[in-house]
Amino acid sequence: MLPLKKNILALEPSTHGGLIRKTSQMYDIPESEILDLSANLNPMGNPFGNWENGHYVDQNYGLDMDNLMQRSLETIGHYPDNRYMDFRRSAANFLKKGVDAQHIVVGNGSCEIIRLVAECVLEEGDMVLIPQPTFAEYEQQSRIAGAVIRYHPLEYLFNIPTDLLAEAKILFVCNPNNPTGELIPRSKLIELAERCTASDTLLFVDEAFIELADPEQSIADVAASNDHVFVLRSLTKDFALPGIRMGFGITSVAMANTLNTARLSWNLGSLPDVVGCALLDMEGGCNSPYLIESREFIRKEREYLIERLSDIYGFEPMSSSVNFVLVDVSGLLMDSEELTQRLASHAVLVRDCSSFYNHNEEHTDIATRTHGYCSATGLQNTHDKEYIRVAVRPRQETDRLVTMIGKVLTESGKEYAEEKLKQTIENAASGAPSSRNTCEYYPCHFRGQDCTFCFCPFYPCEDEVTGGRWIDSTTGGKVWSCEGCTIIHHPDVVHQVLDILMEEGTTKDNLAKAWKQVIVPRL
Amino acid sequence: MLPLKKNILALEPSTHGGLIRKTSQMYDIPESEILDLSANLNPMGNPFGNWENGHYVDQNYGLDMDNLMQRSLETIGHYPDNRYMDFRRSAANFLKKGVDAQHIVVGNGSCEIIRLVAECVLEEGDMVLIPQPTFAEYEQQSRIAGAVIRYHPLEYLFNIPTDLLAEAKILFVCNPNNPTGELIPRSKLIELAERCTASDTLLFVDEAFIELADPEQSIADVAASNDHVFVLRSLTKDFALPGIRMGFGITSVAMANTLNTARLSWNLGSLPDVVGCALLDMEGGCNSPYLIESREFIRKEREYLIERLSDIYGFEPMSSSVNFVLVDVSGLLMDSEELTQRLASHAVLVRDCSSFYNHNEEHTDIATRTHGYCSATGLQNTHDKEYIRVAVRPRQETDRLVTMIGKVLTESGKEYAEEKLKQTIENAASGAPSSRNTCEYYPCHFRGQDCTFCFCPFYPCEDEVTGGRWIDSTTGGKVWSCEGCTIIHHPDVVHQVLDILMEEGTTKDNLAKAWKQVIVPRL
Repeated sequence: MLPLKKNILALEPSTHGGLIRKTSQMYDIPESEILDLSANLNPMGNPFGNWENGHYVDQNYGLDMDNLMQRSLETIGHYPDNRYMDFRRSAANFLKKGVDAQHIVVGNGSCEIIRLVAECVLEEGDMVLIPQPTFAEYEQQSRIAGAVIRYHPLEYLFNIPTDLLAEAKILFVCNPNNPTGELIPRSKLIELAERCTASDTLLFVDEAFIELADPEQSIADVAASNDHVFVLRSLTKDFALPGIRMGFGITSVAMANTLNTARLSWNLGSLPDVVGCALLDMEGGCNSPYLIESREFIRKEREYLIERLSDIYGFEPMSSSVNFVLVDVSGLLMDSEELTQRLASHAVLVRDCSSFYNHNEEHTDIATRTHGYCSATGLQNTHDKEYIRVAVRPRQETDRLVTMIGKVLTESGKEYAEEKLKQTIENAASGAPSSRNTCEYYPCHFRGQDCTFCFCPFYPCEDEVTGGRWIDSTTGGKVWSCEGCTIIHHPDVVHQVLDILMEEGTTKDNLAKAWKQVIVPRL
Repeated sequence: MLPLKKNILALEPSTHGGLIRKTSQMYDIPESEILDLSANLNPMGNPFGNWENGHYVDQNYGLDMDNLMQRSLETIGHYPDNRYMDFRRSAANFLKKGVDAQHIVVGNGSCEIIRLVAECVLEEGDMVLIPQPTFAEYEQQSRIAGAVIRYHPLEYLFNIPTDLLAEAKILFVCNPNNPTGELIPRSKLIELAERCTASDTLLFVDEAFIELADPEQSIADVAASNDHVFVLRSLTKDFALPGIRMGFGITSVAMANTLNTARLSWNLGSLPDVVGCALLDMEGGCNSPYLIESREFIRKEREYLIERLSDIYGFEPMSSSVNFVLVDVSGLLMDSEELTQRLASHAVLVRDCSSFYNHNEEHTDIATRTHGYCSATGLQNTHDKEYIRVAVRPRQETDRLVTMIGKVLTESGKEYAEEKLKQTIENAASGAPSSRNTCEYYPCHFRGQDCTFCFCPFYPCEDEVTGGRWIDSTTGGKVWSCEGCTIIHHPDVVHQVLDILMEEGTTKDNLAKAWKQVIVPRL
């Protein structure tokens, strides 16, 4: 037995997007050719400009990365000043109202801050409340701290019973929420903060994406004056710089003092310290030209993404306030996991959301306690593998996504049809051809139709004499439509085709023979 | 009451060296003028060359920092690959024997790894064994994890009773030890590892400085095949780059897998990932030309440092195997804290070691259980404020340190003498002149001497007619020696001088008058 705690031994790795290198290695695609819509970064790109020949050029926002690099290199020979006063002052100025340096806790990325709070608040066996679906790290870091997790459906956040709230040590809220993109108004969170304070429960609000949605809804100022509210901010997403780890928390002076003592010494290296200050110091703070333009860009490109995805059969994008969109793909023949893998094999990454729902342990009974809502276990079984999350990107990237979705749908449709055909031939050979008239759509074409070939084995025949024709695809290009042809559903055609397909020879050769001998004479 | 755990609320900040910015602000000295001998970095400087006009030049070891910076900037737009396989392979190659990538756990500096292990192993109330004196973070991170600390004197590490060892969840060992500089041979640690394994206790060996002492003594290979041994390595010290946070741990595959799952996602940013790989990949690994030269440089400069310090009255440097030296300053008139502060006010930082002994809570009874050794509480009171730690630096910096020690000793000697003179005058005025013949050195000059002025109020009179003369100082320059003069100890002189000093007027004017009227006639 390893000399580790039980909760650590039971830990599962948490799942995240942005697996560019892994995809590159798995499918042998150069990293530079991979289109990443699985990570939620500002689609405007970082404010340093364009990367050309080893330097950032076209700097529109007054930041010179070469200079920042030099400044940080100049100090790598010394330990960072562990008080991080410059960073904390810059963070406070960035937020402005009601916050100053003494309210700030710095982190090597926002995950480190989630962990810091979890380990400083939670004793083994303490309970935390986590909405479902939401960002995985609240659960992961709480588990590491030894806590018991109780999930509640996201939509019941404001209906958590007082006794349940009082049992919880931390209530986590992601605003706007990842992966749903919903933004909770400030006023409602202030009410929730009051309930949490009264219950001696810490309200942990992760505002990692709020600058890309609406910073006016932030409650950072509330956190600064309340020991029971902690607000998390991230620089990774806003400024599209996940390779430089930078985040910070806002809480009361007393909380911040203690958390800064418990925080790892020198957690911010020289580069994140220098670059972080420069980003936070941009004129206007949350309302810098760069962030204002970013929000406008995201609004427009999100509209375009939703419009394009809505056009694709089986894709139902939800509304969103931020730079990613949750998409219901339960109408497809394949699940979210297969869709994600197929897109990855074509160098396009989207985020499979099954991990957001896939929880096998304790579940809160909040739903039954309040609205007779199905238990969270039911929730998980219902929504597992039904959603993907897609980042809002510049429209040429959205176009590439849509094209690839088209490819993947055609490819999987073909494979599905081949598989069905194989089954049909096997069934016929074993003397049990299925007319499939138990289908809920039967009869979709005409009374007495034979559905042995639900998918036409000759698709796409590309012969307009059949009544089929090329139409515009919603994913770009043309697609062969069989709208005007029902030949394959005539019982005598079915039997003659089946007979030929069961002969010796390859399916391909037999199909050609059946086309010639059975279909062509009928055209 | 803050919504935080009791052990977190009770936490004290841990103390470290390298406080350049703080010193700069406190004494209004530009950061660039501060000489830092309080942080333990490779005195050869980093292997990138010299910093000139925003670039590293004179690269002797084949590393091009500009190129590494560009490579890391190229990837800051993506999340790091959280498996960190490149870094882990490089770390394994660096160590060579018996270690490969799957044994490696990466960290944002070595402190993060101490914390990771502490929080994965320790439940609230678990006991850890920590030698005294040693690096502060073992205690700090164990406290954060809720553990109870038991100290044992460093010299009894190999005499810990089996029952006590079995009670402990972790035994921390720093090799070579900070601040004492002692290096434990590999064979002895292997024996200790066997005892720990049998006791189900994790042996945590921090080898942060071993490449600067003797990497042959490392037990990294033992850790790779034993679930009960964890070895920590740091890149910060070897390569003199504390501004880029990089460290790693070595343990069994099973332990490494679990710890990598519990580790913070993306804890290494792009820059530490790229730079870390480049450093670890230097030809020869632990025996690269840079590290071989570093060890030789340290050996020579340490010898010089010890020689120079030994010459100064009140400084007793201990022997050391590495790039820092512990110095007993208990023979001085001032304690280690005052000495450190006075040197800092002159822009020279050394490490006051009082925090290494200053523990007020639980103490192990290991000493009494074994050798009737004084309790650890006794130990703390004995050694508190008696030691400083000084980094081995190039000799011109050692020379500057010695010069500043000379200044500080003169300055404090003068202040002490002035204070004594003030007391003497006050005592005389109140009719209670003390002849101080209770001094343990009495009579140091002649029978019947009067010690009212233990320190001569005319020092340095600079008049050779007295018998005094200029001699070479051990800290550089000249110092006035009173060896041949005892005038101030004659009882009649004492009374006449005291009478004049008690007259109206400034002490300075009265001293001049006393010199003229009492001393000059006797010369």
